[in-house]
Amino acid sequence: MQLLEERIRRDGQIRPGGILKVDSFLNHQIDTALLFEMAKELHRLFGDAGVNKILTIEASGIALASLTANLFSVPLVFAKKSKSRNISDEVYAVEVPSFTHGNTNTVVVSREYLHARDRVLLIDDFLATGAALVGLKALVEMAGGTVVGAGIAVEKAFQGGGDKLRAEGMRIESLARIASMTDEGEITFC
Amino acid sequence: MQLLEERIRRDGQIRPGGILKVDSFLNHQIDTALLFEMAKELHRLFGDAGVNKILTIEASGIALASLTANLFSVPLVFAKKSKSRNISDEVYAVEVPSFTHGNTNTVVVSREYLHARDRVLLIDDFLATGAALVGLKALVEMAGGTVVGAGIAVEKAFQGGGDKLRAEGMRIESLARIASMTDEGEITFC
Repeated sequence: MQLLEERIRRDGQIRPGGILKVDSFLNHQIDTALLFEMAKELHRLFGDAGVNKILTIEASGIALASLTANLFSVPLVFAKKSKSRNISDEVYAVEVPSFTHGNTNTVVVSREYLHARDRVLLIDDFLATGAALVGLKALVEMAGGTVVGAGIAVEKAFQGGGDKLRAEGMRIESLARIASMTDEGEITFC
Repeated sequence: MQLLEERIRRDGQIRPGGILKVDSFLNHQIDTALLFEMAKELHRLFGDAGVNKILTIEASGIALASLTANLFSVPLVFAKKSKSRNISDEVYAVEVPSFTHGNTNTVVVSREYLHARDRVLLIDDFLATGAALVGLKALVEMAGGTVVGAGIAVEKAFQGGGDKLRAEGMRIESLARIASMTDEGEITFC
C-alpha cells in the first residue's frame, strides 16, 4: 500500500536492534485518516472471505482492528494480555513472546467470544517473528474456529515470521512489507 | 444514550465489588455497530468544541477513541501503561490507580504528541473514581494544552468521580450514567 510505505519512509524511525518506530502515525499517535485508508484496503482484500469476526491483541492492534471491524460490520474481539478481575475464568489462553517488549505474555480470550462457527480475520499492527499470529491462530483453533487470514499493517519480512506462516497455509496480507532496513535509516520494501 | 442503556440492561453483568462487566459488547468483544453509534453521539456532542486531538488510555478506550477520532478527522493519541522499548525517554508521565485491576500504572505520553496548541477530547470506556481522567488531564496540562472535555461510554455515577470532576469545571458527557446497581443485577440509570 503506497500511502503507508511513503509514510514509513517519511516518518518511520529505525532504532538499534531492528526496531521500527512508527509512533508518530500508527502506534502511539495515530493518523486516523491513514488508518481509515488502511482499514478500507483490508476490507477490500478480505471482503469476500466470509469473515464473521475480527480478532486482535491489545493494545496497539485495536485501533486498526476497530475501524476494519466497523467496515466489515462484524464483532471485534481483542485478546487480553493479562487476567483482569473482569474476565471470566473460562478462557482460552496461550503464551506469546513479544519481540518489541522482550517479555512473554499470557494472552487470553473468553470462551464466550470464540466459537466453532467463527471465520476469523486476525489483525495486528506488526508482523515480525509471527509469534502474535501463531498465538491468535491457536486461540481460534482451540474454539474449533477457522482463521481466514491475517491483515497486518507493517510486516518486517526480513524476520521471516510471515513467510513461515504463509508456507503453513495462512493467507497474510501486509499493507507494507519491509525487505530490509539499516541502522542508517534506509528502508527497502518488498 | 438509550441504545447503550438498553444494551447494558440486557447484557451487562454485575460482579461483586461494584464491577460492571460489559465484556460481551464493549470491553473484550466489541459490537462495532453499537460502538459506531456511540462515536457518532460523541461527535455530535463535542463537534463544535474545536477539538484537534483525542487522547485515551490503553487498552479498552482505544476502540471507541479510534472511531471517534476518525469522525473528528483528528489524530488519536493513546497514553501507554508501561514503558516500551519503542517509546522515547522524553515522555510526560503520571501515576494512575486502576479500580478494575486493583493496581497502579505509570501512564506515559511522548512529549512529541501533546502540545500547548492542543484542544484535547479525552475518551474512555469507564468513569468510576475518575482516576484515569485526572491522569489524562494532567498529561495534557503538562504540555500546556487544553482539555475541552471527556467523552465516556459508561459512568458509574455512584462512585462520584464524574461529579467531582464536573465540580472542578470539566465538561463530561457520559453515554450511560449508572445511578445505582445491586448485586442482584438491578441497574438504575441517572
